[in-house]
Amino acid sequence: MSATTTTQAATLAEIRRIVGAAGVVDDAQDAEPYLIDHRRLYRGRAALIVRPGSTDEVARVVRACRDAGIAIVPQGGNTGYCGGATPDASGSQLLLSLERMRAVREVDAVNHTLTVEAGVILAEVQRAAEAHDLLFPLSLGAEGSCRIGGNLSTNAGGIAVLHYGNARELVLGLEVVLPDGQIWNGLRKLRKNNAGYDLKHLFIGAEGTLGIITAAVLKLFPRPRARATAWLAVADPEAASRLLAQLRGACGDVVTSFEYVPRFALELVLAHIPGTRDPLDTPREHYVLVELMSATPDESLQAALEQALADALAAGTVLDGTLAQSEDQRRAFWRLRETIPEAQTRAGGSLKHDVSVPVSAVATLLARGMQAARAIAPQARVCAYGHVGDGNLHFNFQAPPGQSLEAFVAAHGAAISSALYGEVVQLGGSVCAEHGVGQLKRELLERYSDPVGVAIMRTLKSALDPDDLMNPGKVL
Amino acid sequence: MSATTTTQAATLAEIRRIVGAAGVVDDAQDAEPYLIDHRRLYRGRAALIVRPGSTDEVARVVRACRDAGIAIVPQGGNTGYCGGATPDASGSQLLLSLERMRAVREVDAVNHTLTVEAGVILAEVQRAAEAHDLLFPLSLGAEGSCRIGGNLSTNAGGIAVLHYGNARELVLGLEVVLPDGQIWNGLRKLRKNNAGYDLKHLFIGAEGTLGIITAAVLKLFPRPRARATAWLAVADPEAASRLLAQLRGACGDVVTSFEYVPRFALELVLAHIPGTRDPLDTPREHYVLVELMSATPDESLQAALEQALADALAAGTVLDGTLAQSEDQRRAFWRLRETIPEAQTRAGGSLKHDVSVPVSAVATLLARGMQAARAIAPQARVCAYGHVGDGNLHFNFQAPPGQSLEAFVAAHGAAISSALYGEVVQLGGSVCAEHGVGQLKRELLERYSDPVGVAIMRTLKSALDPDDLMNPGKVL
Repeated sequence: MSATTTTQAATLAEIRRIVGAAGVVDDAQDAEPYLIDHRRLYRGRAALIVRPGSTDEVARVVRACRDAGIAIVPQGGNTGYCGGATPDASGSQLLLSLERMRAVREVDAVNHTLTVEAGVILAEVQRAAEAHDLLFPLSLGAEGSCRIGGNLSTNAGGIAVLHYGNARELVLGLEVVLPDGQIWNGLRKLRKNNAGYDLKHLFIGAEGTLGIITAAVLKLFPRPRARATAWLAVADPEAASRLLAQLRGACGDVVTSFEYVPRFALELVLAHIPGTRDPLDTPREHYVLVELMSATPDESLQAALEQALADALAAGTVLDGTLAQSEDQRRAFWRLRETIPEAQTRAGGSLKHDVSVPVSAVATLLARGMQAARAIAPQARVCAYGHVGDGNLHFNFQAPPGQSLEAFVAAHGAAISSALYGEVVQLGGSVCAEHGVGQLKRELLERYSDPVGVAIMRTLKSALDPDDLMNPGKVL
Repeated sequence: MSATTTTQAATLAEIRRIVGAAGVVDDAQDAEPYLIDHRRLYRGRAALIVRPGSTDEVARVVRACRDAGIAIVPQGGNTGYCGGATPDASGSQLLLSLERMRAVREVDAVNHTLTVEAGVILAEVQRAAEAHDLLFPLSLGAEGSCRIGGNLSTNAGGIAVLHYGNARELVLGLEVVLPDGQIWNGLRKLRKNNAGYDLKHLFIGAEGTLGIITAAVLKLFPRPRARATAWLAVADPEAASRLLAQLRGACGDVVTSFEYVPRFALELVLAHIPGTRDPLDTPREHYVLVELMSATPDESLQAALEQALADALAAGTVLDGTLAQSEDQRRAFWRLRETIPEAQTRAGGSLKHDVSVPVSAVATLLARGMQAARAIAPQARVCAYGHVGDGNLHFNFQAPPGQSLEAFVAAHGAAISSALYGEVVQLGGSVCAEHGVGQLKRELLERYSDPVGVAIMRTLKSALDPDDLMNPGKVL
């Protein structure tokens, strides 16, 4: 930890005083996890790692950094996929972890809101809502360790977007420490507020490049009283899209999750995740995990799903399937979906793409993406799965048997990614769907976005952070 | 129409060529409706009134105006309450109406999206969705004449916000002509897209001060197959809030509307709107109009509502009530709510406030606001009604019998407004809830908002519209 000037050294000493002993991570071994990203793609260095205990401390640290020209990298649970929370290699940046800001400041059950600090772990947010018989619907694989500030800074998606929207849609108010160290108190608990521009949406999804989210007012919902969950084999991806439209037509808004799993992904899970088993007797090529939820203790939900599936079976859309008959069975279905990333890692890792297209174009993207990749590397094993109900696919590739991921990526990675992204863009899609941009996808954002839009983003960044001290090198 | 320089005169001639004869309103009588706001609070003048027929024409007009330093006032259906679409009195501004841009560019039923131009009337948007057996849920009194571009520019609210959110929540993508005349093509049909900052939310609710929305991708939903609607008398406003929480607990997300109507408002309607009648035999002080919707043809909806109401009746929360037994009866209930503004106008007009607080503070605001107003003008007649489910009240006052609105406002308007807004702010509320800011509430925004937030808004405005040519004098 070096590469700082004398002034900066004095500032770092001042920052140590601001956050106190509990707020500094000095030990090299303790520091390690803050400096490597979740996927181990990036390793950075930091002039100092601090963990402020309050919004006021964050603001004072930011002011000190601004005065000394020290760049700041905010970090939540460090579970991101794009290196958005990892400092660069210069050793001149300050890493600011929000992990000590873990207060649930207020629950207003009548207003259906929860006010939490940025460092609260997502699962704790969910539990705080449940304690009042309410639901905070954001749910994703890392929920046991990711933190709400990071979820909002990256506008996280997850498995309930179809019904409840992305993280962005679940926020009523924010508290943000701005690049100049001022605190914007936008912690409104209001469902309607048109007092000028909606500033919260500027900071949500900005990955800390415009300021540091320190607290948020979150929307809560009635808790689901009934669930119906099915593991289905469908004829092909196009049948999956058709089934989704039919289900929404028959059952409406209660369709909360609609996940696509190809046979290859299921086999990875069965091979690498202990205690998993194929819910169906006959192997099929394409599966869908569908879940309906209702806030009424609605006994007709299961019946409605059964009826819709019987119709789809008769029409040939669905080939086979099974409804969860217990909570254990429901969890077993979800485990097959949620452990795909872990199974991929255990199977040697994968070349990953997080892309989205209109729901109506998912089947086309699957077909074209596979074709394009196979034209480049015929032996590549396609593992494209995900939130088809949101048009969001994790379009990943495992190396051919016998080849290391590194060798595969070195030989074909750039060509496959480029071909896939080309198809995505042609279908009106996005190359940064739910995992954000970070440092991994900066060039993609530039290459595949509307240049007028990127120019507006740069204008906003320059206006709000003229010295480029907030998470520089990320997003833009 | 004068007050222009020679250069500007040349520019205006050029703009006439750009939009063609059908795109210019020259006749003084034809021009009149564009220059007066809906509430007749403001009368402006314009250097020219144009109605471009395409995004390209809008862009060319904006470029010409920028080069000549001519300010632009965009206008949709001109149904706003705050003078946001009325030019100033100088006669130097160009009024740009979007009314000729009325194309429904695309319906993607599988993706549940609709791509429309800014000038499409809200009711036409609703019908375009219905034609595909889908729902566009934005619904408000002016839907027969307001235009979607204006709805988005003001982030309209309406009667289904409780379930579907404000206009902002119903948008996936935008096309915007920027202050420099460039076109930002953000017309994405994606449910998940984290490619950088979310620019659409900057333009939604900005009332044309950052650019002109020319088209939008809107979210569609499954159409409701079942509805249950009730007109209820409740013990007091606090009982209304409690009832909402109980209903959401018992019936969940299906509660789509929850409107509060005081006896005074009902009496105004009964007196001034032909064909209306009190649904209940005994007069009561406080009413609630509640509606549940389900996308399944769910026969249990009516039963669930009946059961919840029986419980509330037993608990004394609800005093009396009646469920709509037919679509006619349902419409009759809604007419009692929706004609309140018209009844107020016919009864001599009112001093209006559009405010919001957390749902948990609505009853407190009603009590404190009335008390504060009565301390100033004991004879003022309070007509505070609205979207209690969103914490949004239209907290209006009629003049005492025998006094004109003008005399009442001159004597007490400023004091009553100031007292009411003080209570709103103390309860963490907003003085600009769903009707926006326009020119009417600029000072309020400044006075009652967090100054750090207002400073950010000014920074954004300066960065995106450095010459202050986009709807100057509105919002900020």
